[in-house]
Amino acid sequence: MLNGEKKIARPLRWGMVGGGRLGQVGYKHRIGALRDNTAFQLVAGAFDIDPARGKDFGVNIGVSEKRCYPNYETMFAEEAKRKDGLEVVSIATPNGTHYEICKAALHAGLHVICEKPLFFTSDEVVEIKALAEEKGKIVGVTYGFSGNQLLLQMRAMVEKGEIGDIRVVELQYTHGFNATDDGDKVNAAQKWRVDPKIAGPSYVLGDLSTHTYYMSQLIMPQMKIKKLLCDRQSFIGSRAPLEDNAYVLMHYENGAVGRLWTSSIDAGCMDGHRIRIVGSKASLEWWDSKPNELRYEVQGQPIQTLIRSMPYLDESCNADERLGALHQEGLSESWSNIYLKFAIAIDAKMRGDQETLDTLVYPDINAGLEGVRWIENCVRSADQGSAWVDFESNKEAALVGKTL
Amino acid sequence: MLNGEKKIARPLRWGMVGGGRLGQVGYKHRIGALRDNTAFQLVAGAFDIDPARGKDFGVNIGVSEKRCYPNYETMFAEEAKRKDGLEVVSIATPNGTHYEICKAALHAGLHVICEKPLFFTSDEVVEIKALAEEKGKIVGVTYGFSGNQLLLQMRAMVEKGEIGDIRVVELQYTHGFNATDDGDKVNAAQKWRVDPKIAGPSYVLGDLSTHTYYMSQLIMPQMKIKKLLCDRQSFIGSRAPLEDNAYVLMHYENGAVGRLWTSSIDAGCMDGHRIRIVGSKASLEWWDSKPNELRYEVQGQPIQTLIRSMPYLDESCNADERLGALHQEGLSESWSNIYLKFAIAIDAKMRGDQETLDTLVYPDINAGLEGVRWIENCVRSADQGSAWVDFESNKEAALVGKTL
Amino acid sequence: MLNGEKKIARPLRWGMVGGGRLGQVGYKHRIGALRDNTAFQLVAGAFDIDPARGKDFGVNIGVSEKRCYPNYETMFAEEAKRKDGLEVVSIATPNGTHYEICKAALHAGLHVICEKPLFFTSDEVVEIKALAEEKGKIVGVTYGFSGNQLLLQMRAMVEKGEIGDIRVVELQYTHGFNATDDGDKVNAAQKWRVDPKIAGPSYVLGDLSTHTYYMSQLIMPQMKIKKLLCDRQSFIGSRAPLEDNAYVLMHYENGAVGRLWTSSIDAGCMDGHRIRIVGSKASLEWWDSKPNELRYEVQGQPIQTLIRSMPYLDESCNADERLGALHQEGLSESWSNIYLKFAIAIDAKMRGDQETLDTLVYPDINAGLEGVRWIENCVRSADQGSAWVDFESNKEAALVGKTL
Amino acid sequence: MLNGEKKIARPLRWGMVGGGRLGQVGYKHRIGALRDNTAFQLVAGAFDIDPARGKDFGVNIGVSEKRCYPNYETMFAEEAKRKDGLEVVSIATPNGTHYEICKAALHAGLHVICEKPLFFTSDEVVEIKALAEEKGKIVGVTYGFSGNQLLLQMRAMVEKGEIGDIRVVELQYTHGFNATDDGDKVNAAQKWRVDPKIAGPSYVLGDLSTHTYYMSQLIMPQMKIKKLLCDRQSFIGSRAPLEDNAYVLMHYENGAVGRLWTSSIDAGCMDGHRIRIVGSKASLEWWDSKPNELRYEVQGQPIQTLIRSMPYLDESCNADERLGALHQEGLSESWSNIYLKFAIAIDAKMRGDQETLDTLVYPDINAGLEGVRWIENCVRSADQGSAWVDFESNKEAALVGKTL
Repeated sequence: MLNGEKKIARPLRWGMVGGGRLGQVGYKHRIGALRDNTAFQLVAGAFDIDPARGKDFGVNIGVSEKRCYPNYETMFAEEAKRKDGLEVVSIATPNGTHYEICKAALHAGLHVICEKPLFFTSDEVVEIKALAEEKGKIVGVTYGFSGNQLLLQMRAMVEKGEIGDIRVVELQYTHGFNATDDGDKVNAAQKWRVDPKIAGPSYVLGDLSTHTYYMSQLIMPQMKIKKLLCDRQSFIGSRAPLEDNAYVLMHYENGAVGRLWTSSIDAGCMDGHRIRIVGSKASLEWWDSKPNELRYEVQGQPIQTLIRSMPYLDESCNADERLGALHQEGLSESWSNIYLKFAIAIDAKMRGDQETLDTLVYPDINAGLEGVRWIENCVRSADQGSAWVDFESNKEAALVGKTL
Repeated sequence: MLNGEKKIARPLRWGMVGGGRLGQVGYKHRIGALRDNTAFQLVAGAFDIDPARGKDFGVNIGVSEKRCYPNYETMFAEEAKRKDGLEVVSIATPNGTHYEICKAALHAGLHVICEKPLFFTSDEVVEIKALAEEKGKIVGVTYGFSGNQLLLQMRAMVEKGEIGDIRVVELQYTHGFNATDDGDKVNAAQKWRVDPKIAGPSYVLGDLSTHTYYMSQLIMPQMKIKKLLCDRQSFIGSRAPLEDNAYVLMHYENGAVGRLWTSSIDAGCMDGHRIRIVGSKASLEWWDSKPNELRYEVQGQPIQTLIRSMPYLDESCNADERLGALHQEGLSESWSNIYLKFAIAIDAKMRGDQETLDTLVYPDINAGLEGVRWIENCVRSADQGSAWVDFESNKEAALVGKTL
Repeated sequence: MLNGEKKIARPLRWGMVGGGRLGQVGYKHRIGALRDNTAFQLVAGAFDIDPARGKDFGVNIGVSEKRCYPNYETMFAEEAKRKDGLEVVSIATPNGTHYEICKAALHAGLHVICEKPLFFTSDEVVEIKALAEEKGKIVGVTYGFSGNQLLLQMRAMVEKGEIGDIRVVELQYTHGFNATDDGDKVNAAQKWRVDPKIAGPSYVLGDLSTHTYYMSQLIMPQMKIKKLLCDRQSFIGSRAPLEDNAYVLMHYENGAVGRLWTSSIDAGCMDGHRIRIVGSKASLEWWDSKPNELRYEVQGQPIQTLIRSMPYLDESCNADERLGALHQEGLSESWSNIYLKFAIAIDAKMRGDQETLDTLVYPDINAGLEGVRWIENCVRSADQGSAWVDFESNKEAALVGKTL
Repeated sequence: MLNGEKKIARPLRWGMVGGGRLGQVGYKHRIGALRDNTAFQLVAGAFDIDPARGKDFGVNIGVSEKRCYPNYETMFAEEAKRKDGLEVVSIATPNGTHYEICKAALHAGLHVICEKPLFFTSDEVVEIKALAEEKGKIVGVTYGFSGNQLLLQMRAMVEKGEIGDIRVVELQYTHGFNATDDGDKVNAAQKWRVDPKIAGPSYVLGDLSTHTYYMSQLIMPQMKIKKLLCDRQSFIGSRAPLEDNAYVLMHYENGAVGRLWTSSIDAGCMDGHRIRIVGSKASLEWWDSKPNELRYEVQGQPIQTLIRSMPYLDESCNADERLGALHQEGLSESWSNIYLKFAIAIDAKMRGDQETLDTLVYPDINAGLEGVRWIENCVRSADQGSAWVDFESNKEAALVGKTL
């Protein structure tokens, strides 16, 4: 149970690149980071590609004017000169800029929290991972939905065998907000997502499904994909080669099978982010649109709906509980949970507390690497005519399950 | 709106092969056929492989003792001698017997209503179809879920363009009642389903997904599959080569894509029969477990839940309405709707009323043929290592949409 | 588990008064009675106030022309002359005619099944009850929703103490189909419902809430109302003094409290028939719009959804099960269950089988009497300015729980 | 749309009385107040009745040690000496202490935000209201659920006539967490709630139903109660005379009727906070457990589910929107919305901006007064044997609808 009391000695000095007035995601970072003012303190930012607008915005959210910088290069340089300079920076910019900013931040001695998908290629991630290790820094990835504590409940139930052996994995993250191309032309936040130069090799696979893929790893860290097949489409032709709809079939090493559907043309859908794990005895089902419920279906028994915050939930789940029974949590709490773990990881790294780092479950750079790998495997399959391909992964990356 | 008043001049003299005390499906046939006693009259039966049990059962449901026959051969022979003999017979036996019984029935001058999947091969269906034409008889297929009138509402809305161009088709029919192999050993009705000699080339693809596939054709008669890929598994090893779980990916000729999941190992699932049709403007979603509701999701508008029997529904939908608003219909009404259409078709055939036959939408032998084709295509793909295969169909079979 | 096999030696010869083409409820009687053709056989009818229309209708549903009578008096007289004449008659006419027809039927030696509310006054019911006893006949009352077997599940769970001591009873039966007075003027079936001369002393209290009140007695036969308060309104003024909305508060003898809301002006409501029973340990909740589900909420445990037909349900519940798991039952099955019990009761009465009569749970004349008592108490309270009144009941009527 | 940018010139210097480690509600105040660090800044606190624990807690949430005070008297005195002293204080202590602390705070020149129910008697509220006016200070009341912006959507739709004339009002706030008296003995936060000396004249009426009553006023400011009847019970006898369950019936001045049910013994209920407003054309239904949805049921049309954040919602609703479509908001956002409005009100008061004060809709002292009036009327009715009583209100208090 969390109540805002500090989990680390003092809040970390935190800044942002991107996340300004025009985008939607920056506010989620701040909601996550600043929930209790005991994990992070926002001290600087290069919030906007338009320096004046960025400064105006920064001041409006309480950053001192002189620490609202025109760009990240200046911010990293100037902050490095201060005794009370930045310690950690979040990158909430379009995909195509993540790699350079992340590298610069690490070189500037900063811990990094970065939007997903991390970079364009897994080679880039491997390189940055090595750099982070060299610099002794944390790189976290904001899979912002993955902080919902009922996912940890699922993880615990899977681990304890409460559903039996996993047989079928159903993953979905779809919506219909881009069923037409209206947004592609006028909405800045949408425009770059369908431009391969900025978005990278995929649209919805990277934008949506990396979340769900990571969440599946979080729930079932022991499950490894053996091969997959991806079939992707561009229903709005101008988006090609980037897909606005994709199907993936998976074969896992243990004999389980799985599917993923991701789409931004699922017209009218407001409930499209879901995970169902079918075991030999029971199934678990989680819907993002019902963030306070978890469905547990044991074959031959009444259907159970588990409710967030109840004492019958696993300790690991309730450790991230804040509001108490009958009080609905939502996406804000999910981001807060993730950011708190980033803070704990960074603090542990600073203190050389390897035990904490070895046991803390959070979306670290390995999770980011696996996300990029996921996209690469999907695109490779799709580009071979939607053919089955062996899943290429990084052995060292498969650490989501480290605490098990 | 139906209220039991006759739709044909007099009830047809009807009998059954199979459908006795030990099975579950026979009662559904009788519920469907005998709803109003104005479409069919049950006059004879060879209800059971055990003649004594069959006779006892037949008498118990009101058939005269002497017309409870030990087997279908005797029934067809004896009834043919009567002036008031059988006119139509329903076949509710294990798959492997359908072909022979159907052929014998047609040769005996009977109209036929047969369980799905019709036969083992499409060649057999083509042969029987020719025989039925030669004999001037109807062959109907009991896709028992397809009588829910909200499927006709979906058909009408698709036809009128209310969802725009179809882009994505999501089909699912799963349950978890065979998550273990307990039933395979002791339950007669389950035992034969996993025996290829009796079930044919598939288990759940034939047993479950043929329903959903037909319903998709009913809703979207204009949509033709171009190619598909089927990935099937036997999670209970003793069921191999028959699958207890299968995934299918589809490409339609108009550029749409689709998926189907069918399973009898979806542990704990009680809601697994669903259809979602995504168009360029809106989506329609139907769940068998909510048979009185249809979800209509227009992108950018409030989600709409359409309720069975309301005046805002299409005339074609409300034509099959019986109970009125606030009064829940269920699977019984679905079967009643189908059987009533069988009666109307048979009556029209008897009267030589080709116009009725040309416009009546019901699961006829073409629907049965397409169902077998569906299985054949899926199995062919699965047996090629879950590879994409061109969909082979019968041009003449594609008549579900004839009235459009 | 029911499959249509006979429960009594032969089907009873059954007729109807009312229930013709223009009304909605007659079809429900026939669906209920004729489900399996092993309980009742429809042989005669005075279906309509318009004799020609009634005859046309009767013939259309399979009654021989000469047994389609112009009125009930003729039917009773003519049928009495036949060897194969009527044995039991259902009365599906407006309220104001029930008493006379019922009395005539009993005098004609018939068993009676009558629509609710039975008569205008409890004195009339007491009189008819005595007459039925004198004549050795059954009088059943068609509380048509009460055949849903999950109500028996609730009854069994309450009886076994699975919710603890009952504290709170929430009853609701509301809809919005008469939010305007459009129907009052043009719809024959609605017109008489708001005319005190035909409907009796109440509109929605009698038309709707008697169902729910009976169902509450069925679930909790041991619970007796001590006093109640009824507050009724006529939102459409022309309906006064008959109410289109009413609230009732109840105090039970065991200290529990309860509420009932009934309305036909609950605009847009399609889910308004519900029962919630709160015990000291857990609650049960049933919604008519989800007839295959029962919610069981144990304080401090995951919410349970019990699904119709599953083996974990009580034997008394599954005794009325027909379609099997995954197959949705609806209102048709509810009516079929009630009518089957009427047949069993009548057959037992004919055979003098008192044991069956003593244990069979079905809506008999006592249930009808209690329903009229309910209305009388509500109206008495309302007419005293919505004041608390002691609940007047008939000691002998409180027999719904006789089998406990 | 809110994104954290400042709405007032600078954050207000804010402190808390109560809300320490052992209670649950203090964290909600801080989540609400400190969401963006642009409305409030937490600078001081007397968090706990145990000074050492309070100081430890305060330091842990980032308050400087010397501004963690042993009690509110000291805090008000010491802070008054500072140039940068407190400007506003929130009171999150048991009911019985509100009046004294509030008075002291006003005398100390502070604006006040206080938990509900405000005080024990409406006379106390009238007195404090006068004092606040004299001192030129704001007193806000934390009806914490009332910040959900879909309530403003309901208000707008009611105002625009989209449901027609209001006829029926259904209010419910129930749960089952006190179905036993376990918590009464050991849980500090529950113990005082059932002690009349600390809780005041009611338990659940004050603790729960004041929320829902205020929300009903927010939605329908024009609706005034004319008379009511309250029937309350103490199912756990040791709670008497305080009720753990209560029913209220209401008559509104416009002829509408309403009901409220509040309970803490509704065993197993996790969905019990609901509002349904029935109009002559349509109904609106809101469930706290589905905070991102609003059900709009127009008689004769498909049921509509409105989704938070969508452009089709009213401007007044979307003004409080933060996270964007598909991103679930919860109780945190509700508290944030209320606290932001407190800040805006206080800032306007400081600046003498009467126009803002005249139009801002938030739970002010009049809302607090009406809440106490509500309890008084209910208790008066209950104590007269659950009799109808005329509703006594304060003419000047009825200002929730001031902006209409």
